[in-house]
Amino acid sequence: MSTFNIVVLPGDGIGPEVAAAGVSALKAIGEVYGHTFNFEEKLIGGIAIDERNDPYPADTDAACQAADAVLLGAVGGPKWDLQPKRPEQGLLAVRKSMGLFANLRPMDVPASQAFRSPLKEEIVSGADMLIVRELTGGLYFGKQTRTEDRAVDECVYTVEEIERVARVAFEAARKRRNKVTSVDKANVIETSRLWRETVIKLHKAEYADVELEHALVDSMAMHLVTRPKAFDVIVTENMFGDILSDLASVLPGSIGLLGSASLGSGKGLYEPIHGSAPDIAGKDLANPIGTLKSVAMMLRFSLNLSAEADALDAAIEAVIKAGQLTRDLGGTLAGSEVTKAIVAQIHAAKVAA
Amino acid sequence: MSTFNIVVLPGDGIGPEVAAAGVSALKAIGEVYGHTFNFEEKLIGGIAIDERNDPYPADTDAACQAADAVLLGAVGGPKWDLQPKRPEQGLLAVRKSMGLFANLRPMDVPASQAFRSPLKEEIVSGADMLIVRELTGGLYFGKQTRTEDRAVDECVYTVEEIERVARVAFEAARKRRNKVTSVDKANVIETSRLWRETVIKLHKAEYADVELEHALVDSMAMHLVTRPKAFDVIVTENMFGDILSDLASVLPGSIGLLGSASLGSGKGLYEPIHGSAPDIAGKDLANPIGTLKSVAMMLRFSLNLSAEADALDAAIEAVIKAGQLTRDLGGTLAGSEVTKAIVAQIHAAKVAA
Ligand SMILES: [Mg+2]
Ligand SMILES: [Mg+2]
Repeated sequence: MSTFNIVVLPGDGIGPEVAAAGVSALKAIGEVYGHTFNFEEKLIGGIAIDERNDPYPADTDAACQAADAVLLGAVGGPKWDLQPKRPEQGLLAVRKSMGLFANLRPMDVPASQAFRSPLKEEIVSGADMLIVRELTGGLYFGKQTRTEDRAVDECVYTVEEIERVARVAFEAARKRRNKVTSVDKANVIETSRLWRETVIKLHKAEYADVELEHALVDSMAMHLVTRPKAFDVIVTENMFGDILSDLASVLPGSIGLLGSASLGSGKGLYEPIHGSAPDIAGKDLANPIGTLKSVAMMLRFSLNLSAEADALDAAIEAVIKAGQLTRDLGGTLAGSEVTKAIVAQIHAAKVAA
Repeated sequence: MSTFNIVVLPGDGIGPEVAAAGVSALKAIGEVYGHTFNFEEKLIGGIAIDERNDPYPADTDAACQAADAVLLGAVGGPKWDLQPKRPEQGLLAVRKSMGLFANLRPMDVPASQAFRSPLKEEIVSGADMLIVRELTGGLYFGKQTRTEDRAVDECVYTVEEIERVARVAFEAARKRRNKVTSVDKANVIETSRLWRETVIKLHKAEYADVELEHALVDSMAMHLVTRPKAFDVIVTENMFGDILSDLASVLPGSIGLLGSASLGSGKGLYEPIHGSAPDIAGKDLANPIGTLKSVAMMLRFSLNLSAEADALDAAIEAVIKAGQLTRDLGGTLAGSEVTKAIVAQIHAAKVAA
């Protein structure tokens, strides 16, 4: 029996609806497994600009720093398009302040859902991978230089940056199928050679029990489409991870099913991969599953509650399999009805056990 | 009636077989359309190391410089793995010497072949795109720095480098469906901002008749899988082009069907995208279609023979549709039999016209 302090950042658009779904699921887990979750709601994004003229107010930051984990809905929308302050600055600020250097994106295609994929069912059915992307280094954060007719971006990596994200991947693999595929372009660029050397050294020193393979980023883009079932944990640098995780995200045929975690040395931030979808906000149409998958990751990675995480994942899968779905997945239920079904499943599974 | 001087670089493995197929097709085109093709065969790759101790001998270079176009088979193989001189150095040397800055990779999925794709047929059937990749700039050719615990790669682009490859894309679009999708990461990196600005300026000044759209590289990776039919010509920088063209290459379900062109300010080099496949070399099993598609590009881009290029493409498609295929595509024909069928089709089509 434990007590956890969770900061909830509902944000904009459908953010509040899906964040509420996450809170419901955590409450259900708390009741069934005897934990206490304390929730503190804070402002971020567009609504924080509206109410405080700041996409990431100081009290939001203080709460995130003190929390055991942070749950985020979504930020942004056309309402703030013409403003100097951007909702997305809130997202960048919280990531930076919390020191989140690893982004985790699980992608799985249960057999019952393979028909939704753009890939042929026999290729994708049963695929189940976790992409670990370095989030604070590389070309996206390098020095930029510009003259009238020439531009330069610098791509930098240090051993320390590579080691800490590789460690996240190896640890995650031990909780999954024990295999890591490290992706680089070591046949051409220097940062990738350092990446590969560092991953190999760390593997030898501390994770020799985990199966390790290496792939070039261009080959990996092909493999994700031709043999997605061959992978367990994939770890790569920032830009390659951006491209490959977005590529992988279309394989289930709906981004409404996918969650994510961003981890630092301390706490973690959990959010669905979909955006704020202002067109359907407030109509109870939003699919809560991406957020609930993120909550399962929170249980697993930040709160160390593996059995509870498994129970939530199983409840989600049971409800999907039963066809209790929102309209984006061809169902007829409201978002809150899907959440209720999953909460009921959590209770029912515990009774049955 | 014209005369063209073609240098043929058969290279290693199945290279000589597929290069011979290309020569046969050019001879047939010459007979039917009244052109004279003079062929000069030269050494490159592993065989050039064996015979001359140099993967790119001086007389090969002189011939390539003087030719109207160059046809390459393939280079490399395990035989040269433990040597200090590498067959692939021949490929890099010819590209550099000929100043080839644009790599063109067409990818199409005829309805009759969509069943081979890893994508669902309704998504991919009829897709027909051309990826134009900048080949000599960006991160792959930038300054590299390395200390014990830190590595740096520099990504550099100039207006001139961007303009000349964008020009290739716009010109190609005018010969196709008149649309260009320019891919960058302009929301994050400086070289991509220069890329986008330069493409927009050139479009406005010289190619306003061509439809132009922009996509971010991570979104583009998704689009190639979810709506590949939406694209005509795609143009992008070196590394993004490496990843996206390899990703696109798996969509037809066989790399045996794909050709490529590398263009400079003067001549062009044409080659199938497959490798030297030493395991099937000399057995007449190699699929000649990737090379024949490359020859069609040679006719179109270097020799300015559009009608002849269309005739060769049509002959290839007719033979594929008739199921006259090599074993890699589920057929029973030898590579030379497929070539003969395509040559016969070129003659038959002319008689019918
Ligand atoms: Mg992205
Ligand atoms: Mg490649």
